[in-house]
Order: sequence, then C-alpha cells, then structure tokens
Amino acid sequence: MIKKYVFGTPLETGAVTADVAPEKNTPEEVGIVDKTDCVAFVKELEDDDRIYGLGENIRGINKRGWIYESYATDDGIHSETLKSIYGVHNFIIIDCKKPFGIFVDAPFKVTFDLGYTYMDKAIITPQGRDFNLYIINGNSLSDIVRNFRKAIGKSYLAPFWSFGYIQSRWGYKSADECRQVVKEFRDNGVPIDGLCLDLDYMDSCKVFTTNEKDFPNFEGFVKEMSDSNVHLVPIIDAAVKAEKGYCISDEGVENNYFCKDENDNDYVGCVWPGHTYFPDYLNPDAGKWFASKYKYYTDMGIDGFWNDMNEPAIFFSKKSLDALKNDICENKERDFGANDYFALRHRVNFLWDYKEIYHNVNGKKIRHDKVHNMYGYMMTKSASQGLEEIAPDRRFLLFSRSSYIGMHRYAGIWTGDNQAWWSHLLLSLKQLPSLNMCGFLYIGSDIGGFNSNTTEDLSLRWHALSVFVPLMRNHNGSDRPQEWFRFIHKDWFRDLIKSRYRLLPFIYSEYLKAVHNDDMMFRPLRFVYENDSLAAEIEDQLMIGDSVMIAPVYTQNAKGRFVYLPEEMLMVKMYGDEIETEEYEKGRHYIEVPYNCVLFFIKKGALIPLYDCAMSTKELNKNKISVLCFSDEGSAEYEMYSDDGITKSSKVKKLEILVENKFAYCNSNDIEVTVLADYLNTLF
Amino acid sequence: MIKKYVFGTPLETGAVTADVAPEKNTPEEVGIVDKTDCVAFVKELEDDDRIYGLGENIRGINKRGWIYESYATDDGIHSETLKSIYGVHNFIIIDCKKPFGIFVDAPFKVTFDLGYTYMDKAIITPQGRDFNLYIINGNSLSDIVRNFRKAIGKSYLAPFWSFGYIQSRWGYKSADECRQVVKEFRDNGVPIDGLCLDLDYMDSCKVFTTNEKDFPNFEGFVKEMSDSNVHLVPIIDAAVKAEKGYCISDEGVENNYFCKDENDNDYVGCVWPGHTYFPDYLNPDAGKWFASKYKYYTDMGIDGFWNDMNEPAIFFSKKSLDALKNDICENKERDFGANDYFALRHRVNFLWDYKEIYHNVNGKKIRHDKVHNMYGYMMTKSASQGLEEIAPDRRFLLFSRSSYIGMHRYAGIWTGDNQAWWSHLLLSLKQLPSLNMCGFLYIGSDIGGFNSNTTEDLSLRWHALSVFVPLMRNHNGSDRPQEWFRFIHKDWFRDLIKSRYRLLPFIYSEYLKAVHNDDMMFRPLRFVYENDSLAAEIEDQLMIGDSVMIAPVYTQNAKGRFVYLPEEMLMVKMYGDEIETEEYEKGRHYIEVPYNCVLFFIKKGALIPLYDCAMSTKELNKNKISVLCFSDEGSAEYEMYSDDGITKSSKVKKLEILVENKFAYCNSNDIEVTVLADYLNTLF
Repeated sequence: MIKKYVFGTPLETGAVTADVAPEKNTPEEVGIVDKTDCVAFVKELEDDDRIYGLGENIRGINKRGWIYESYATDDGIHSETLKSIYGVHNFIIIDCKKPFGIFVDAPFKVTFDLGYTYMDKAIITPQGRDFNLYIINGNSLSDIVRNFRKAIGKSYLAPFWSFGYIQSRWGYKSADECRQVVKEFRDNGVPIDGLCLDLDYMDSCKVFTTNEKDFPNFEGFVKEMSDSNVHLVPIIDAAVKAEKGYCISDEGVENNYFCKDENDNDYVGCVWPGHTYFPDYLNPDAGKWFASKYKYYTDMGIDGFWNDMNEPAIFFSKKSLDALKNDICENKERDFGANDYFALRHRVNFLWDYKEIYHNVNGKKIRHDKVHNMYGYMMTKSASQGLEEIAPDRRFLLFSRSSYIGMHRYAGIWTGDNQAWWSHLLLSLKQLPSLNMCGFLYIGSDIGGFNSNTTEDLSLRWHALSVFVPLMRNHNGSDRPQEWFRFIHKDWFRDLIKSRYRLLPFIYSEYLKAVHNDDMMFRPLRFVYENDSLAAEIEDQLMIGDSVMIAPVYTQNAKGRFVYLPEEMLMVKMYGDEIETEEYEKGRHYIEVPYNCVLFFIKKGALIPLYDCAMSTKELNKNKISVLCFSDEGSAEYEMYSDDGITKSSKVKKLEILVENKFAYCNSNDIEVTVLADYLNTLF
Repeated sequence: MIKKYVFGTPLETGAVTADVAPEKNTPEEVGIVDKTDCVAFVKELEDDDRIYGLGENIRGINKRGWIYESYATDDGIHSETLKSIYGVHNFIIIDCKKPFGIFVDAPFKVTFDLGYTYMDKAIITPQGRDFNLYIINGNSLSDIVRNFRKAIGKSYLAPFWSFGYIQSRWGYKSADECRQVVKEFRDNGVPIDGLCLDLDYMDSCKVFTTNEKDFPNFEGFVKEMSDSNVHLVPIIDAAVKAEKGYCISDEGVENNYFCKDENDNDYVGCVWPGHTYFPDYLNPDAGKWFASKYKYYTDMGIDGFWNDMNEPAIFFSKKSLDALKNDICENKERDFGANDYFALRHRVNFLWDYKEIYHNVNGKKIRHDKVHNMYGYMMTKSASQGLEEIAPDRRFLLFSRSSYIGMHRYAGIWTGDNQAWWSHLLLSLKQLPSLNMCGFLYIGSDIGGFNSNTTEDLSLRWHALSVFVPLMRNHNGSDRPQEWFRFIHKDWFRDLIKSRYRLLPFIYSEYLKAVHNDDMMFRPLRFVYENDSLAAEIEDQLMIGDSVMIAPVYTQNAKGRFVYLPEEMLMVKMYGDEIETEEYEKGRHYIEVPYNCVLFFIKKGALIPLYDCAMSTKELNKNKISVLCFSDEGSAEYEMYSDDGITKSSKVKKLEILVENKFAYCNSNDIEVTVLADYLNTLF
C-alpha cells in the first residue's frame, strides 16, 4: 500500500508514523532524472490525467497546470502568481490510468512542476539529495488517501466548543472592546463560542505577557468571558522580543534556546515586537521550554491558542537592513535610474534572510533553509506536547499558520492571511478537500477575508460556505471592521450563524468520522462519482461525508447559481429556523440562493440530524435531534458519531438514526428524534 | 435624451461633442448631498438593480458591490482590491425600474461607491466642485448607450490590417530577434500582420530615437518587414529623458513645453530613461510640438503606434527620492522597529507625487491632480492630430494605455499590464462591453497576460477568446516568453489564429457597425434578452452584434463549460479550416471545447461570413466569402459592412448576404458567396 524510497541520508521529520521498510529498488511509477544537486521525478501525463493534493496551496482542486514550490512563506497576496504559501503539504495523487500517491518527505524546498513547463509532464524536484519518497497505492482515489493517512497517524481532535462561531479581528485594542463585541452577539441573539485575541492583548507584542493597561486583570477577564460561554483564544507568535529583563528573552539567551547566526551569536531578526530571537523549535529542549510557557495562560483558564508567524515570518534582519542603509547612504549623491529604483524596491520588499539562521539539531548545526518547512510544525508540536503535560486528557483548541504533514496530529490550521476577494472565497472551498487528503481536518479560512476591505455580500456568502467548515472564524485586519453587526442586514448573518449551530450534530459527526476512519470530510465530486466525467470537472461543489453535497455562491451580484447534481437529490435551503426542501433530478439546475440561505443537497436514503439552535455550544440540547430526510421508499438512515467533546479519552458513540414511514428511531434511548422534513412522505 | 448639469466652473475636457444646453434645475434621478469640499450624488438601489459601465475598470460587468476611484493609475496587480486602473471612464448606467446613465465629466478623482459602504446605495463623489454632470435617458439599456455615444462623438476608426494578429514582447532586443520571430510565423504557416516594438528599439529609452546598434538601418528594417506584410508598431512613452544635447529634451526646455514644479522649474521625475521631463500635453503648443515628432517614424514607413506610460507613470521624483535617502541616512544609527520598516516600504512602493507637478492650461497654472485623468488622453489626442497633419486621410493604428472618455475619437486602447491569471482572462471578457459603452471599440487585452509567467493552456484559451477582439495582440514582459512557438502544441495555436483570419469579415463588419451606428460591438446578454432573468445573471458570455454569442472557457483544466442559451442556437466549433456545427435548444448545456477550438453560437435566421485564411490581411481574397448559417425556414441573412480599410474618407459598403434554399446571394456582384454549412438544410 505504501512504499518508501530513501535518498541520501534524510533528516527524520516524523511525518510518517507507520513503520515502513525501505524498498531496495527505485519506484516504477515515476521516472528518475539525476541532476547535479538533486534528483527529479517525472511522470508523463495523458490529456485526461488530473492531479490532486498539495494541501493548502492555491489554484484548483485539480492542481495541474502550475509550478508550486513547497517553502513556507508569509505572503499575504495569494494571487494566481503565488507558488508558496504558509503550509507545506507535499502529498499529491496522480489521477491517471492507475492512480497513485506521492509524498515527498523533505523539510527543504521541493518544486512541483505539474504540467507548467510541459503540459504533458509532472516533474517533482526536491532541492536537495537527502529525503524520503513514498509511493502510495490503493483501489480508488479515496483509498489512496486512506492508505496515506494511516501511514501519517490520526488527525488532531479539536474540542466540541471550537465548532462554535469564533469572532476575531486584529484590532481589538482592549478588554472593553472585546466585551462590546460579545455584547453585540448576546444582545442580538447571535450565537458565539470563541473570541480570538490578536497582538494587542500582549505587552508590546511579547509572548507570554499581557497588556496590563488595556487588558487589566486578565485572569478575571478570561473568567468573565468563560462565564458567558465565550472562550478567549490568544495568539502566540513564534519569535521572542530581544529585550534584557524580559524573562522569556533572558531564559532563551541563557540556555541557548534561540537560533544562531553563522558566528554562533543569537540571530536577530525583526518582527512585530521589533528585534526578536527565534526559538529553536528543532532543539527538543528549546521546544519543551517554550511550550511550558503556555501554562501562563492555561492557569488563567485559557483553553485555546493560535500559533502565528511561524514560517517563520521575518520582516527583515538587523544585518540586511543595516546593509541596505549603508548602501543607500554611501550612494546618497548618485542619481538613481529606473534600475536602481527597482533594485531598492526589491531589497525593501523581499528580505527573508533564511540563510543567515542556524539550528541545533541533535547537536549538529544546520542552516535554516535545509529544515525551513519544519519550523511552524515543530513549534506547534512542542505546544501540543506542552499542553498535554499541563492537562493530559484535555482537548485544547490549537491551530497554526505554518504547517507540514505530521503536524496534523497535533493541531488544526487556518489558511493564513487571505484577502477579501471573491476568488479567495472559492479558493477556500478548494483548499478543504486538498487539506483533508494531507490529514488536516480542523481547518478554516478567515471568513470575509483577512486583508483588503470586505463587502457585506462577500461576507454573507463566505459565512454561508463556512457553516460547514470546522473552524468557523471571522477574522480580519483591514481598515474595515467586518463583524456581522457592522453591516445592514444583521438578521441575514444571524440566520447563517444559527444554521451553523443547527447543523452541528452533522458537522461534528462528519469531522469525527474523518478523524477516526482516516478519511476525508470534504471530497471532490470526482472522488465519489468516479465514472461521471462531468462530476470530474466540478470544482465549485463538494461532498461532505457520504450523504451531503454543498454548492455555495461565490460570485458577486449573483442571485443564485447553477448546480450540477450527479444523481437525484433533495435540495435544502436553511434560513436559521426556517427550512425549505425540494426534490431535484440528476442534471444541471439554476438555484436561487438568497443571502441568508445555507444551501445543500441530501442523497436519496440519507438523513441529516439537526439540533435546535442555542447561543453557544454549551447551551445546545444534545438529547433532542430533528432530522431532514430524503427517503428511499419511506426510509432513510444516518450513522452519527459523537463524543464528550472535551477529553481525549472520550469514546466515540456511533448512533444509528433511522426513519421509517415518518417515524424516527435512534439506538440511544436518551435521544429524542423527530422528523422535521421527509420529502417523499409529505412535508412537515 | 441627455441633460447637462454644471457644477462650479468646470474645465472643458472635450469629452462631450454634442451641444447640450445646461439645465437650470438639479437632476431628479439622483439625490444631491452637499459636503464641505464636494457634492455627492446618491441613488437608492433595489435588490435587483444592476450597474453597468466604468469602462476598463475591474470586477463584474455588473459593477455593483465595490468602490471604484477614477484616477489613472499604473498598477500592474489588478487584484480585486484595485480601485483605479489606467483608463478613466466615468460613465455608468443604473439598471433600475427606469434605467438611466450618468456621466461625470471631471478630470480629477471621482469616487464611485456602488453598494460598497451600503449595499443599497450608489454614491458618486467627484473630489472637487467644478465639473459637468450628464444624465442620459433612453428606451432601453442599449438605447441609453447610443444616446450617450451620440453625445461624445464617433469612435476611432482603425485600419483593417490592425485586425490581423499582432505579436509583441518587452524583450525583443534587436532587429534580428524580431526577424526570427516573424520567420517562425512565416515558416509555420501562422498569419501575422504586426509586430510591436517595446523600449529596446529606442536609444536609451529616448522617444523619437532608434537604437543604432541593435536596430541598424531602421528604415530598411521597417521596409523589409513591410515587404513581408508585417507592420512594425513602436512604443511611444509619454515622458522625455532629461538630457542636454538630446534634441527633444532641449527643444522642450527651450520652449517651456514641459510640466513645471511649484517654482516654475521643469519638473523632473524618473521613469524608464532615468530622469525625465513630462511634456505638458494640456498646453496645445506643447502637444502639437510633441505630435509633430511622430513624423520621424512615419517618414520611415511606420503606420502604427502605441502610446504608453501616459497616466503618467512615475517611479519616483527626484525630490521624493532625495528626501527618502536623507531620512534614512539621518536615522542610520537608530534601530528600526516593525512600524519603521513598514513606513519605509510604503515610501519606496508608493511614490507618485502628482501634487508636485503643474500644467499651463490656457495660461493658467494648474496643479496636476486637478487634471490628472486627461494626461494620456491629451497626449493621444495630440498624436492623432499630428498624424492627421502628416497624412490627412490615412488611418493610422494608434492605441494608448491611459485614456478618458473623449479619447475614443482618436485612438483605441489596450487594457494595460494585466497578469497571466485565469481571472484576468475572464476580466478581459468583462471589460469588452463596459468599454464599448464608453465609446472604446478598438480594444484588447494582452493575450496570455503581460506580467507573471503564463501557461500553455491559459495562452490557448486566451487566444480563443481574443479571436473576436479587435486588437488581437499577444504581449508580455515576464520571464517566460509566450509566443505560440514556445509551446508544445504549435498546431493548436495555428488553428486559433487561422480562425481569426477566417472570421475577419464578420469581426470587422461588427466593428464598423458599432463605429458608424454609435453602437456596442460586445453586449452583455442582459442588454439583448431584457426579459430573461437568467440571462441577466450571465457574466461569462457575450453577444457580438445581433447574431452571435460567444462563451469562452476561462477555467484551468476544464475540458469544456456550461453555456446558457437564451434561445435556440446553432453551435459552431471552428478549428481553423475545420468546422463543426450542431443545433442546441434554449437552456443550459455542457459543451466540450478542445484547446484549438473557437466556440460560438449563431441565432436562428442569421448567417456569418468567412474568408479563406491567408497569412496576412493583405493576402486575403475579399471577393470570396463563404457563409455559415442557421436557417429559419430555409433562409438566413446578414448585413455586412466593409470599407477600404485604409482611408478615413472611405465610404462604408453595406452588403446584403442572403441564403435561400442553400443558394447564397450578395448584392455586390464582385463577391462570390458559397454556403459552407447550413444547419437546417443538411450540412456541407
């Protein structure tokens, strides 16, 4: 099922947990081209071949037709030109006559030229000679994914509350401002479970501190929020302000926990706090030390964190900026031409000096670019292990910006600093199945867009998609605040967020299934309808689990959209408490979708469970479930996974919910099930 | 039909040529809000209201849902965040219960907040108090456009040869390299009519010079190309290198033809040649002087030009760069924090110092930002008038990057430095009808994308759309050259370009109709099928004239696309010499579209005329026409416009082509017409 090929002497990344014996021969699925500094793998492509995977990276679900570089990058403009993004997920599936998967386990840059240079060739080039290559086979595309996922270990299990609505903004300057935001939710009957704290809650952007002036009595503030069922989720930046007297800085310096420069001095870059050190998360002692500091917050009652800036993002290094200043001052009298100007612009805009940084890996000094893609992964793995020491059985919310395959066992991710673009709403949909293939299940994009100013309609449509996405977080940092209450149609947003809470038994169940069965929660239609050539073309609809299809609107000013149904399905339009259903034949249909509508489709014979809405996950009545079903000869069924949502050791309950002749049953006596709408047996 | 409202004391831009008496009252179509520095116009929007227009600007055909700024800007990243683009086209139509058009004739910045701040309001704010506002009424959307177009004067008439294929690249370093490019076309049987020359043909980017080293005997080179039916089209940049001894620079200085700074010294900015002066095109003497210099090239046989960098683009000014250098050097020893760094980045990236520049307008000193949007317009208007003095009856090819309504009478435009993005392929389609509304008919985008590296499939699909676009130019400046012969499937590109030449009698005829009837060549479906609510939603298909609909593929890896037919139509797939046809019912259909296929649809009762392909427009046999028809009870017809394609005074011939019972007629005896495919009367 999975074969391992060892090239050179790889650094073990820990991505693969299965014990796979290395093959003696070279892989037969791909050709090998030996180059001076590296080897390349080549697969000839037929016209109809498709390529899936690459996790978070941009473009289509079918990745063919572009050149991607796996090199964790903090670049906030995810245009079609981008090659590298925050996370590095080197798994692809070549969907050819005999499909197979490839995982390049290399912590340095890897180039995936997937029909870019030559339309008919995929060329994968790790930029180094020491790495493991895995080839994964299977009976179907989904089977290849499951086989890969079994090899890389079970995905992170997020707490149930983190499936509630989370509000965030880089711009909440004080506890009072946060209180006001939460009050808007509570006063207007809009559910919420979490509030993220961005940079401003810290003292001068120093990790593991709080801003006493604007967030006085932080512990009391955490408790106050918690009492109203709101979890505060602080940001943890990867770098540490270089400042004598600041204990984190001092301890790191004293114990050599920070990355070094070529002369073995602590490396100094500049990020939000100004000059910073970079904890050497690849050194287990340093990782453990940093992770132990999360206790500062957990002691106050915090149970959720987001790890940020951990590619690592570096605005400039002291060295590079000094060099730039010197060059400018030495040439101060010289007239600049166009080329001088563009050279200056280039130097000011691109200053990630990764080649100046060194790690201590098992006592060996290794230059950062050789292990670059593991940095955020190791920070987050350390954090996860630190949190486990603090509370061994407790599920914390933990998600990271940078990542690498393997990190999916420790945390979720968000897809970074996207833009308030309609194209990024669609991109966020396409990232879902691709990330699932790579083991990342607790995922989500910044609803409404992080950069650029959003519009009300974009934000509404983005919410409608995100109703189905595990991490449902509205986050931004642009000039225009974008909480739902900033816009005109507050009730439309309320309908959408209420629909989320109603759908939670289904969403959480599908998430648990994917975790426990090493499966995908979101699948491209191609993975389900393998013999339907039209389904293979569809990149703006997704299957969720076995029974549901989503088809969000992602075009501005569109009153609806065309949806392709690969089989007869029940259309559901949910407006918070209100629900409309209608049966549709296989084929292409235009469906009107109002802004407050969550649109989805149920396959015949299936049902989906719903809760009554509540103002937080804690307040949900989990013993009362209503169902929407599309009966097949009077019956429909669903296997619902659930657990306590709090502990790691919680056993998964598998409930059978069955509808026959309008009567609903569940094999758990505690749960009352009612049929809300059964299309084939007259409604309501 | 058109009403004029005068605010303050407007500078006359010359945009409107009709003699319209000013109204005494204020307009009743929009509300007026008087602010301190300006007035704003407000129109409440119903849910179903749409907004069309704004010419070149980004986003949808329906412009609702964004805030646009009319301020000519050289920004090569046309993401969804953009507000301003190269051209300024202040005409919109509010498609509400009683649709009407608005034209804001103001040469300074105008903000169009079209449902951005409030989803249900359009707010138009000229950033000044002196301007003319026009309200245009009509019986239909198309009628409103025609009424506006009648008021702004007839559109520029391009020569027929400029409808041939034009190859371009910022990167042809020598005449030999150009020869080699043309040879590839000729050797492989791919038609071509023009080759653009970018910066390198000049001596050190100095306008009205040639690079003697790499383009020796320029006049001979022009003749050699002309002899093989290739027109050379040099770039003319707006700014003039500041260099003593360079005659253009010296003459400009001597006669005060350049823009001034606040102290009445010649203003010095930096563009490609390094330090430059900016001819004051708003001063008629300066414009006339600059335009007279085109004779340098026309004397050598050149008959086409593209005016570039005329927003004007300014990389920096000497003043602003000196200030930046000083600030850096004075603070050399100070440690930079994150905010210092971002401040530096901002200053390096954004340096258009328009407020440092002054014009002489009728003897009055006017700061540039008050008249900014007229700069490229006046450069190009001057050029057109200069060329008319050189050869009064000759049609020159002339197109410009910056523009303003009014300039459509003098030249075409291309849509500037787009990107090799799939989203820009779709954008280029959406710009076509919007530009037509504003009078620009000779238009086109850089096929394949100017910035960023293209892919073969993107380039193919872009060619397939551009087959129908008047200016069909493949132009780029990225690392990856993108002439068709750089790719694997050369024959696919050949098929597409050959289809262009075959379709020329139709394309040129539709262009002439739009010019002479003040009409749109490209129309949104909404303009034609006014009672079809689905057609109103379609933004990825266009009508060409009365009888044809296009629906290009604009999605990577898609083997085809869904097409909405608002009525029964004949589908045509053209592959150069090969043609396939099939009848389709009204409704939504999935159509496979191979990469070498030009897809379009013909309405019932219509026909379209075709030429046999030739290797240049000059070699076409215009006396032989074959037709494709979709007969209605055995008959189909088309009114074909043609002229000599060379002179301005050429009379338009209106030919009636008629097919009845498989027999084809034309009311010109010189023309032989044959029926190539008549769907309802058996094929071929």
